[in-house]
Amino acid sequence: MNAREADVTEATERRQVDDLDARLAHVRRLLDAGAEGELATWLEELHASDVADLIEELEEDERVRLLGLLPPDIVSEALSEMEEAEHPEELLAAASPERLIELVRALPDDDAADLIGELPPEEQARVLSLLPRVEAGALHKLLQYDDESAGGIMTTELLAVEMALSAAQAIEEVRRQAREIGEEFYAIYVIDRYRRLQGTVGLQDLVLAEPATSLAELLEPPVATIPVDMDQEDVARLMARYNVPSLPVVGPNDALLGRITFDDVMDVIEAEQTEDLFRLAGVSEEEEVRSGWSESVRSRLPWLFVNLITASLGAAVVYLFRDTIDELVILAAVMPVIAGLGGNAGTQALAVTVRRLALSDEPPQRYWGVAFKEMFVGLINGLALGLLAGIAGYVLEGVWLFGLVVLLAMWGNLVIASFFGAFVPVMLERAGADPAVASSVFVTASTDIFGFLLLLGLASALLL
Amino acid sequence: MNAREADVTEATERRQVDDLDARLAHVRRLLDAGAEGELATWLEELHASDVADLIEELEEDERVRLLGLLPPDIVSEALSEMEEAEHPEELLAAASPERLIELVRALPDDDAADLIGELPPEEQARVLSLLPRVEAGALHKLLQYDDESAGGIMTTELLAVEMALSAAQAIEEVRRQAREIGEEFYAIYVIDRYRRLQGTVGLQDLVLAEPATSLAELLEPPVATIPVDMDQEDVARLMARYNVPSLPVVGPNDALLGRITFDDVMDVIEAEQTEDLFRLAGVSEEEEVRSGWSESVRSRLPWLFVNLITASLGAAVVYLFRDTIDELVILAAVMPVIAGLGGNAGTQALAVTVRRLALSDEPPQRYWGVAFKEMFVGLINGLALGLLAGIAGYVLEGVWLFGLVVLLAMWGNLVIASFFGAFVPVMLERAGADPAVASSVFVTASTDIFGFLLLLGLASALLL
Repeated sequence: MNAREADVTEATERRQVDDLDARLAHVRRLLDAGAEGELATWLEELHASDVADLIEELEEDERVRLLGLLPPDIVSEALSEMEEAEHPEELLAAASPERLIELVRALPDDDAADLIGELPPEEQARVLSLLPRVEAGALHKLLQYDDESAGGIMTTELLAVEMALSAAQAIEEVRRQAREIGEEFYAIYVIDRYRRLQGTVGLQDLVLAEPATSLAELLEPPVATIPVDMDQEDVARLMARYNVPSLPVVGPNDALLGRITFDDVMDVIEAEQTEDLFRLAGVSEEEEVRSGWSESVRSRLPWLFVNLITASLGAAVVYLFRDTIDELVILAAVMPVIAGLGGNAGTQALAVTVRRLALSDEPPQRYWGVAFKEMFVGLINGLALGLLAGIAGYVLEGVWLFGLVVLLAMWGNLVIASFFGAFVPVMLERAGADPAVASSVFVTASTDIFGFLLLLGLASALLL
Repeated sequence: MNAREADVTEATERRQVDDLDARLAHVRRLLDAGAEGELATWLEELHASDVADLIEELEEDERVRLLGLLPPDIVSEALSEMEEAEHPEELLAAASPERLIELVRALPDDDAADLIGELPPEEQARVLSLLPRVEAGALHKLLQYDDESAGGIMTTELLAVEMALSAAQAIEEVRRQAREIGEEFYAIYVIDRYRRLQGTVGLQDLVLAEPATSLAELLEPPVATIPVDMDQEDVARLMARYNVPSLPVVGPNDALLGRITFDDVMDVIEAEQTEDLFRLAGVSEEEEVRSGWSESVRSRLPWLFVNLITASLGAAVVYLFRDTIDELVILAAVMPVIAGLGGNAGTQALAVTVRRLALSDEPPQRYWGVAFKEMFVGLINGLALGLLAGIAGYVLEGVWLFGLVVLLAMWGNLVIASFFGAFVPVMLERAGADPAVASSVFVTASTDIFGFLLLLGLASALLL
């Protein structure tokens, strides 16, 4: 097969996930053989994000050895592909100051800042002190921003040309700056001499324009600008909305501070959606998908305690009606069916509403419409399930009134469930909280309570 | 304030969500005033995705009127910003053939294909027949691909230059093609004379290279190539993984068919994550966040029926132990607490495991490790909650053995819950199904069943 085919096949292999362990074995083999040169060349073949996966999988000691012998640029690329949380601290601990500097300088500055940000304060100071003043200054600034804000994910490495230039001069300037920053750029920012953002000019337009054209003619206002303190989730929504590969980050008076690119944002979108799902399920967002058991316990136990309290309310309702159950013990068997289906119908409404709030831009006054739609859905699903359960109940007990009680309880509880499923997240949103926060705990609790109230209340009213 | 500031302020306003209704009112005012010119100029100011929002919000008749009087390019841009499902079919129905052609031709071809794809077959044929043969042919091809495959989301409008050219010639060619396709391009594809993909060359490298340089020298293998039939979710994962703004789509023998850009993929990521959340909650993916009640009923009722059956199993267990409950009715009050907490602990484990499977590339042999970690978490959380519940039980009944039963039931059920929470999605994944599919229904069902078994079984063994 020719070189091209080889490339494609390689690319395809790279995509394959299940050969991770194979690669891991290969690395270990080379490490043990001490074939450092071979290892380095082999790793250079891989995409940085594959190297990152490998590093994450290695044992601590192997990892330190591997990172010790790799050229800094490979290591840095790999590091910048890793999720912050997965950065191997021991690498930083193990690395010599000189080594650390090499790494930091090879990293794009946003990643460098993340990396340094993980060090204990005195370490941070030490590393910064070893860097050239300019870089140290830039990094120090970046370190000030909140990790989850635009400032925390932006890079300051961008292409900016002054308004005064002509197209031809601008291209020259772009050539020069492009060589410096090395990274991909997607827009060329036009600034005045106080570095205030004036607009952007597309590289395409620049390339396509007549040399003498003045930048002013090619100037476009940015689709949007990102305030440096904007929350990363809003940044992600903004970029997804306007479908732009990068947006400028500005401070007071439109001072151009940095840029955020689509790839920063893709990671944010995934992270935020994990967070939403976790919150919905009552898992605190500190927990990573790969957290150890102790983290998991710390992140989940608090919500389970809350749930223990809410569940006790349901238990209290049952306890109130203990005589009713005493007289008609079959009710104890029907209880979980009513409560369970309520819980699931509620979860359905919850999932749809949470996503609806996350994705669409509906003004608050619409929220009631949402809740009513959900209740109507519950009205219909409840009737359908109520009839089934009611008939089953009649067949079991041979008392038509008992069937009626089951029907009404099921029907009513599904309406209530659907209502709470839509209502809880909307209320949380209006209260300025994340609509997903432990919603499921509250919804299942209320469906338990009302389900029991309906079933046992109706039973004691109609059957005894 | 100067023009620049005006731009920024405007951009900021655009970002604001709550002024949607204000804009809506403005449009209606202009529509009623019949101020079509003013309306058109005002809409041209807005970003296409904002226009899209407006169109979605309008009543059917207003919408048709609005779309009727807008210049085709605005309409098409707006359409391409809308989610497929939100395309106003009545627009297509209402539009004259000529108008429809205008729209289709103004759209990028992937959006045009989506648009035509929504028409009834005979309509599709009609529209295609009215288009120039070449365009009709291209669209016809695109219509053949599965909506959710790479072919379904790719555009065929891309920049491709032949291997034989020099950098200077290539730039010329790029200029020409760029004018034609109008859209942003992120890579220039290098092909042989059979249009087989040879690799890519960055526009930057091209611009920075000496004019005489041959393309062969600048050629880079693509980070990855996307087979035309790849599922869109895998495409999204691939692009998020390699952080590239666009990837080439190839057919057999690396024939270059099209390209997919990050913005197509951002939409896919959001859509797929909605789908995951919905599946987890037992909502079929046909349901849109803005679906009407009838769709919602159709999408949710089936899972509720499944849930009715699974819940009945739990009921059956309780029924088996009805005598136990008869003798010790307090058990009926404890039941929902044990089952409910099991359900929530299971949901927590479920959420974490589902995301873990979705995000990380762990080989199947790791799955058992995941399940064991979750069980260990359940072991600890279960003990903590069991002790609390047990003490409460002792206080309530004054019988220490009763407290012990509650403790053991709670403890055991949380271990089981955590296990199922991790086990169900893993099994679904291994079975080649979506790990999220209605997992919560199965998990809560099993936590009910085992919770009741443990509580009532232990009670009848130790207390009676």
